[in-house]
Amino acid sequence: MKSNAQKLRDIIDSKEIIKVGGAFDAMSAKLVENSGFDAIWAGSFSISAINAVPDASILTMTEFFDAASKMVYACNIPVIADCDTGYGGPDNVRHLVKKYENAGIAGISIEDKVFPKQNSLLENASHDLLSEKDFVGKIIAATESKQNKNFMIIARVEALISGMGMDEALKRASAYEKAGADAILIHSKQKTPDEIFQFTESWDGKIPIVVVPTTYDSVKIDELISHKIKLVIYANQTLRASHAAMSTLLSKLVNAESIKEVNEMMSSMDEIFRLQSMYDIKTMEEKLDKKIRELGY
Amino acid sequence: MKSNAQKLRDIIDSKEIIKVGGAFDAMSAKLVENSGFDAIWAGSFSISAINAVPDASILTMTEFFDAASKMVYACNIPVIADCDTGYGGPDNVRHLVKKYENAGIAGISIEDKVFPKQNSLLENASHDLLSEKDFVGKIIAATESKQNKNFMIIARVEALISGMGMDEALKRASAYEKAGADAILIHSKQKTPDEIFQFTESWDGKIPIVVVPTTYDSVKIDELISHKIKLVIYANQTLRASHAAMSTLLSKLVNAESIKEVNEMMSSMDEIFRLQSMYDIKTMEEKLDKKIRELGY
Amino acid sequence: MKSNAQKLRDIIDSKEIIKVGGAFDAMSAKLVENSGFDAIWAGSFSISAINAVPDASILTMTEFFDAASKMVYACNIPVIADCDTGYGGPDNVRHLVKKYENAGIAGISIEDKVFPKQNSLLENASHDLLSEKDFVGKIIAATESKQNKNFMIIARVEALISGMGMDEALKRASAYEKAGADAILIHSKQKTPDEIFQFTESWDGKIPIVVVPTTYDSVKIDELISHKIKLVIYANQTLRASHAAMSTLLSKLVNAESIKEVNEMMSSMDEIFRLQSMYDIKTMEEKLDKKIRELGY
Amino acid sequence: MKSNAQKLRDIIDSKEIIKVGGAFDAMSAKLVENSGFDAIWAGSFSISAINAVPDASILTMTEFFDAASKMVYACNIPVIADCDTGYGGPDNVRHLVKKYENAGIAGISIEDKVFPKQNSLLENASHDLLSEKDFVGKIIAATESKQNKNFMIIARVEALISGMGMDEALKRASAYEKAGADAILIHSKQKTPDEIFQFTESWDGKIPIVVVPTTYDSVKIDELISHKIKLVIYANQTLRASHAAMSTLLSKLVNAESIKEVNEMMSSMDEIFRLQSMYDIKTMEEKLDKKIRELGY
Repeated sequence: MKSNAQKLRDIIDSKEIIKVGGAFDAMSAKLVENSGFDAIWAGSFSISAINAVPDASILTMTEFFDAASKMVYACNIPVIADCDTGYGGPDNVRHLVKKYENAGIAGISIEDKVFPKQNSLLENASHDLLSEKDFVGKIIAATESKQNKNFMIIARVEALISGMGMDEALKRASAYEKAGADAILIHSKQKTPDEIFQFTESWDGKIPIVVVPTTYDSVKIDELISHKIKLVIYANQTLRASHAAMSTLLSKLVNAESIKEVNEMMSSMDEIFRLQSMYDIKTMEEKLDKKIRELGY
Repeated sequence: MKSNAQKLRDIIDSKEIIKVGGAFDAMSAKLVENSGFDAIWAGSFSISAINAVPDASILTMTEFFDAASKMVYACNIPVIADCDTGYGGPDNVRHLVKKYENAGIAGISIEDKVFPKQNSLLENASHDLLSEKDFVGKIIAATESKQNKNFMIIARVEALISGMGMDEALKRASAYEKAGADAILIHSKQKTPDEIFQFTESWDGKIPIVVVPTTYDSVKIDELISHKIKLVIYANQTLRASHAAMSTLLSKLVNAESIKEVNEMMSSMDEIFRLQSMYDIKTMEEKLDKKIRELGY
Repeated sequence: MKSNAQKLRDIIDSKEIIKVGGAFDAMSAKLVENSGFDAIWAGSFSISAINAVPDASILTMTEFFDAASKMVYACNIPVIADCDTGYGGPDNVRHLVKKYENAGIAGISIEDKVFPKQNSLLENASHDLLSEKDFVGKIIAATESKQNKNFMIIARVEALISGMGMDEALKRASAYEKAGADAILIHSKQKTPDEIFQFTESWDGKIPIVVVPTTYDSVKIDELISHKIKLVIYANQTLRASHAAMSTLLSKLVNAESIKEVNEMMSSMDEIFRLQSMYDIKTMEEKLDKKIRELGY
Repeated sequence: MKSNAQKLRDIIDSKEIIKVGGAFDAMSAKLVENSGFDAIWAGSFSISAINAVPDASILTMTEFFDAASKMVYACNIPVIADCDTGYGGPDNVRHLVKKYENAGIAGISIEDKVFPKQNSLLENASHDLLSEKDFVGKIIAATESKQNKNFMIIARVEALISGMGMDEALKRASAYEKAGADAILIHSKQKTPDEIFQFTESWDGKIPIVVVPTTYDSVKIDELISHKIKLVIYANQTLRASHAAMSTLLSKLVNAESIKEVNEMMSSMDEIFRLQSMYDIKTMEEKLDKKIRELGY
């Protein structure tokens, strides 16, 4: 059977651009899959948010891992896990690669910030970078620990976020590629894709470039393709749609005369039953009954 | 400090009707709280759905417990946990009451179906009831195990769901009250509240009545009040709104030229940051710095 | 890379008798491996005991699964998981087979008791059997759900424990083999192996026989071999040795003048460091430093 | 009902010296309780060891928390949790204090090493200290987050371990007391208690002193008392006894003719049944049957 890491590699080799949809639990992951995305992003901002805790290394690796594992269990397309800073030093990275790979996760992303980190898009937050040397150590630890060569180690460069500038970003990206990273995620909090495109135009590495256009949300898919970007992560749109919809519904429902007033905002029970394979139980029960009867009972 | 069980009791004693909003993770629970509901319902249908598994006793008590505990951690209003059939016999019920009460959950609901159960609203499913005697055993086990008398044991009567009729429903409700239940949840899958109102009109017990009007969704809040119903659970509307919103967004996003096309469907990053107390970190850091400086550093 | 299920199959095909050592956490599992046993038994009696809860279906599948998964993570020899009654009906069994197989567990055992069950060796406990037909349903569900044909489904026959007699035991064992079981675990609480040997002499099935000689502890390994028994599980001896040693040590230590008085009862810190690969960290750090330097840092 | 934190405070106020026994799961915790110790130490070295991973911040807070919580669930005496460095910065410490206090843990210890840390007794390991200022920040964060004033924050001083000397140790201990710590754990890896006694003789603080005499194991309990030491933690002796006993048993068992050869090394099944309250189930069943009958069934 093809591993999820192999599936991810195959998609990267065969498509112009890979669309990765953000998820935070098995249902959102399954909806990403059902909508036609290529892969799933188990993002730590969104997973922190559904736990109502800050995106600041408050949840532990165990909790992020459980969330990503449940997505793998529920879905057929590959899951890429956002592993923040790697939850410690090289020893922690080794441990996590073994755990995540064993669980059928297709790849991970680790970023070159200092632990504990804060969300990259938060204003006035501290976004201190780890030294290049120390992060290279984590990349080496990660690549050495993987057993399937297709398990993807994405090195996330936070130099533009932290204000260290383009040269630092390019220098680090090259260093991480040399250290064995399988892809570079270059992150930006600008409202336009200008610095991202400046990066990709200067970049002469061989490994794929990944972007997360949360803030430069008007960038067009064709522009990403023409700038040699291979994976685009829609990291938190599902979360924000869910939050918006529930907020609106609840503020109406709390004062509604009856539930009927909010009916048009909701999926039917039937749609949820289908998502959770509720009807398959019936089918499987019938098949099982048939087999049991065939055995003479 | 007032226990959550005490808070729930106080609301019941002071309000005409208690509105309980369904949640499945800490974010949805916090939104329920923020919207002005009185309490939170940690429902097993919704929690199963976000795990993309059938509502058929597939998730374990551990997983339902973790979900409810995270809601307690995040919220100030009381959390009531849907505990299906109690996950086994009287010994399992004793274990769960101790665990749930220790975790600050305000009350639990257990239902008189046979384990493993299937969702009550699923057509053509088996909804076999446990014998009244055996379920009375579970209620006694539950009431004996609680340490705070305010910890609420809700006995859920499934006689109307299973087609056993009104007399059976009334007989069982009385038996469960006698056995020590603190409230009766009478469940129905009719499109109208008729059988529920027939029940409440015939019911002469002293403990509060709880309903879940998922199917009879046009019933008005005033009708519930005038029929002596004390708690109304909006069990799965948040889930269904979240599912609908994500489905719509994703089907647009997968073919969109840019994220901008779906912007109006989403909450801002800022709203999520507020929900997860991201800005409190900044405030707390500043306060901490001040205190550290006061100590002479 | 060879799967753990394949490893287990290979040992069964190549050895006269397979010695399976009982474990309850990763350390005990690793000690079983280090001592030369062929495989590890993640037993629910022992796992319940270290959680200080009765062996009576109190812990959930999640908790048993986590314990077995940690053994797989730590060890190279195959882990067989004791899954009690399968934690519900055929749907639960399907779910567990998928989960356990994904986690690299080599095989599972499910038994034909009614859920919730009690430990088979407890006197005066209820040991009601599920109907043969219903258990055959579970076996079919299990075999259909496995993806690797080598993943081993062990059907545990409790007819002798429950007092239903030899004919019932043989009839059920045959039925379970026909339904697709990969091995039969025939359990007994007699002080001698007589009824076990009577079973194996009458048994004409093709799949391997497994025994757990907790009570008939004087049976010799050669006798097991000569009675066509293929796997012997030493289910709880590690647990009981650990319990005995800690009890003795603690009763001395609580009144001791100094720790020195109990030194001879303990492994050294060094032995523990080795078990937990504490020194490997040092080695790996040195190798990593070397590689980082080679990259020019 | 008296909180566990209150129980711990009461023992400290009433006894000459508090004996704290190390545990790593609920069974070892219960044995510590049954043997007459005053409190339980949920130590991270031992908990790491039973997971067969290095004591180097590899396990996450979630895993250490689960282990300590299970001890609280099983025992009546207070549990003190070893929280290493606090698993991050002040925000992580705030989160952990809330979680641990809610779970009924009586107190925590955090140490002034840099995260990720390594075991203090490991030779040639790096034992870098956090700056005094930064650790004071963690202590303030901890004390501010607790809701019950009796929840005990133990500040563990690693200056002697790291080779920074006695003056640094005393200076830090004073700073931590000033910052609000409830006790000072002064750690040493010397073979004699000399430096510990030098510390206690120079120490003029008001809060209790805690020691862990793993290496200076010949120190007498009377010496500890006469040197103003209030709590002594026997951190890892249970673990090492368990490891030794299982190693010996398994090396015999793997080549034994029958289990009987190792019988004298083991507790009986009966002793385990008692530890896990297996017989209580029977008693409770009988009581429950009686009550059910009294209700007329």
